[in-house]
Amino acid sequence: MKAGSFRKFIENYVFLPEHDWTEIAKCLDSQYIKKGDFVLKEGQICNHVYFLEEGLLRFAILKHGEYATKFFTVAPYAFTSQYSFANRLPSRESIEALEPSILWKISYEQSEALFKLESWSTFVRKLIQEVQFFTELILEEAQNETAEKRYLKLLEYRPELVQRVPLKHLASYLGVTPQSLSRIRTKIQKQP
Amino acid sequence: MKAGSFRKFIENYVFLPEHDWTEIAKCLDSQYIKKGDFVLKEGQICNHVYFLEEGLLRFAILKHGEYATKFFTVAPYAFTSQYSFANRLPSRESIEALEPSILWKISYEQSEALFKLESWSTFVRKLIQEVQFFTELILEEAQNETAEKRYLKLLEYRPELVQRVPLKHLASYLGVTPQSLSRIRTKIQKQP
Repeated sequence: MKAGSFRKFIENYVFLPEHDWTEIAKCLDSQYIKKGDFVLKEGQICNHVYFLEEGLLRFAILKHGEYATKFFTVAPYAFTSQYSFANRLPSRESIEALEPSILWKISYEQSEALFKLESWSTFVRKLIQEVQFFTELILEEAQNETAEKRYLKLLEYRPELVQRVPLKHLASYLGVTPQSLSRIRTKIQKQP
Repeated sequence: MKAGSFRKFIENYVFLPEHDWTEIAKCLDSQYIKKGDFVLKEGQICNHVYFLEEGLLRFAILKHGEYATKFFTVAPYAFTSQYSFANRLPSRESIEALEPSILWKISYEQSEALFKLESWSTFVRKLIQEVQFFTELILEEAQNETAEKRYLKLLEYRPELVQRVPLKHLASYLGVTPQSLSRIRTKIQKQP
């Protein structure tokens, strides 16, 4: 079934009547992204809300000529560049595929029309609340914990990121140089 | 008019029919908070969504026995402890009044019932999106900028915070000791 994993994903948040899923499914287009390609580049307006069926993305902003990682999105999950999407303004962030990725997308106009469905409206609200919660957790750690402690937490709670994300992107997410992260890794490996 | 400033606040986000405002206004209770008192303490379930009509709050989490500041809310603005409120779970954060504050509040059950109104549903979604945007901005700075640069940005973009928030809370927001922030201030004042 087309985008069945997206249907299951939505059903984790709300009750989804058959009729509503039919309406949503009509709006879905698929997109394949190669490793290293961008779903969105800074300066573009984000015109879609996406479901990442397979793959891994990083959200990053240009700082001092380099991309600094804000966070990662691992399939299966839904995403957009929220501020750009909601306000129809150029995005400050870029979204890059760190692995070959399969996406399903819904345009801004279609998403607006889907808000007549209570299921879609509730799903979007609950999803944004969850994203807000995750962002606050990352912020709390960035404000209060050392890079080493944050790396240890990644190892414990998000080991798939540590396995799948290149060291340089993990380092920029933690706000340290790749050399510093290498030293942290070596130190941890030496501990009993 | 009761809570007229809340009505104006909602109207910044959505068209609010008279009937919808009447429904919302029926749910509103006022609350006064003294300086230093808590709207919410960690471990409590947040049972309300609030509109801050007057005053200044800080959101903080207990870290190593001290409250570390996550961010501030300056009137007029709406807030809740989102994860606790939405999931009916004990809050990890506390919300403290840094000034005498006037609040309007709506209970969880009432807010759920108000979602039948398209205006309320859209208002809440747009507000959460805006909060998410602000949180991402703070995160980007915490990941990429020094405390000094972040303090300079506060001076430029949120001078009311620098005037109204005690130094120790600004310092914990910037992730430095009060002594470090004092040194940063002295350094900046000496610059031409």
